[in-house]
Amino acid sequence: VNDRPVWFKAEVLQRTGSFKVRGALNFVGALDGAVRARGVVAYSSGNHAQGVAAAAAHHGIPATIVMPEDAPVIKLANTRAHGATVVTYDRATGDRVALAEDIARQSGATVIPPFDHPLTIAGQGTLGLEVGEDLAAAGVDASVVVVPASGGGLTAGIVLSAEAPGPEFEVVTAEPASHDDHRRSFESGERVALDDPAASICDALLQATPGELTFAINRDRVAYGVVATEPEVLAAMRWAFEKLKLVVEPGGAVGLAALLAGRIPGTGPVTIVLSGGNVDPSVMASALA
Amino acid sequence: VNDRPVWFKAEVLQRTGSFKVRGALNFVGALDGAVRARGVVAYSSGNHAQGVAAAAAHHGIPATIVMPEDAPVIKLANTRAHGATVVTYDRATGDRVALAEDIARQSGATVIPPFDHPLTIAGQGTLGLEVGEDLAAAGVDASVVVVPASGGGLTAGIVLSAEAPGPEFEVVTAEPASHDDHRRSFESGERVALDDPAASICDALLQATPGELTFAINRDRVAYGVVATEPEVLAAMRWAFEKLKLVVEPGGAVGLAALLAGRIPGTGPVTIVLSGGNVDPSVMASALA
Repeated sequence: VNDRPVWFKAEVLQRTGSFKVRGALNFVGALDGAVRARGVVAYSSGNHAQGVAAAAAHHGIPATIVMPEDAPVIKLANTRAHGATVVTYDRATGDRVALAEDIARQSGATVIPPFDHPLTIAGQGTLGLEVGEDLAAAGVDASVVVVPASGGGLTAGIVLSAEAPGPEFEVVTAEPASHDDHRRSFESGERVALDDPAASICDALLQATPGELTFAINRDRVAYGVVATEPEVLAAMRWAFEKLKLVVEPGGAVGLAALLAGRIPGTGPVTIVLSGGNVDPSVMASALA
Repeated sequence: VNDRPVWFKAEVLQRTGSFKVRGALNFVGALDGAVRARGVVAYSSGNHAQGVAAAAAHHGIPATIVMPEDAPVIKLANTRAHGATVVTYDRATGDRVALAEDIARQSGATVIPPFDHPLTIAGQGTLGLEVGEDLAAAGVDASVVVVPASGGGLTAGIVLSAEAPGPEFEVVTAEPASHDDHRRSFESGERVALDDPAASICDALLQATPGELTFAINRDRVAYGVVATEPEVLAAMRWAFEKLKLVVEPGGAVGLAALLAGRIPGTGPVTIVLSGGNVDPSVMASALA
């Protein structure tokens, strides 16, 4: 692509169709047995939801997931298919964190945070370790690694994994142009909170500000942030369909979109994290139109 | 799927987006250097075309491919992208074999047969060896293996590979209901040639009769043949989109379609060969509609 070697980390092929199951399994697995038995609660637009639901099913414990009522149908259905109870809320008026904490208080269940926790971050970081192993096996000793960012948990896991021996990573965050809080935060050196951002097709990347812990980790370790527009994201989904034969959801394609749009400077190897593939057929159909 | 373990051999992720590059590389690689230097010719609806074009590019030799003018746009474009010269013909009135042989005679190039040759079959058989290794690694000692069939070359390679030490295969061919020449031929014990079969969305599986050599190999080694209807194929493409996050072309999805339709009896492990993923966006959009 663009005359440079490009590697893809296809988390669309991961269990639950996104990287989120990594952090969820790590967190749920680390709970004390008696605590874990009381179940888990999470709030999520859909991929963390499926990850926590799958982790709970793996351990045979109950899970309740708070999800926006307009989450992709496939994400709602898959979360329920793992046996989780789904509680929906109105994205505009509801407070999902309060809802989840209330459920946890009443049931004794544990809230599994989507990004801003060391155990979640460490789980996501296993992706970075695998990228390092794969690049080393291919004889690549340095690569730009482009990571879709919302709360910044995957990015934080990857920048920390890069401190292990192995190929050198230059980590770049990718965001929808409407939700460029990481880019702005890196530029200002402080966490920027977007005020009433526009709607985005990237339903997995709608956080308006980086996490507190994740930003503390990422601020000095991420090289820079890039963005992609909505048409660029749709074009990247179509490109992945045609060239890779992979189904990538909008939020999972934002790094590829930035690369195809020429926003990753340099000529050396690039690793694109395709972070998720849970997209409704109607959305993919519009990308293919 | 259907309460039984199912394995997928995702040839959509293979170079050129289908298994065909295996046979093409094996055949072109086996040519005498001086003969190979004069180039290669092939006739194909599109996947063998890409396979031969890629094999020729790998060896730095010219390739001319005879393709139907109504082949999928993606297959025509990808074949040209490998540097091959594409000659189109009218599927209803043209004789693609004569066209290819004529080009070969004039240029000194070698015709690379799509299925009915030992070197082609041996190349496709590497897929069966990999399936055997993967099943063995997973501790599976026997599996039904469902293979999309057109000329029968992939099936022949797989049944022969099954004679190597390793897991036991029960090989089943899958075809579009309109092009069930393998099923009929297995039932009658002789090669059946369909007379003016109906159109099919499975552009890669339009052969009206099994190959001579492939049928001699397959007749006593294939367990039975199954078919899938057009709506079943579209449903399977959608299922692969939703559950596997893989793009599968109609002909590549026919085995999955038969499985989902309940036509693979038994309760043990099933291996589904997803033989290709070169589908035009408009066709996938209609599968997703």
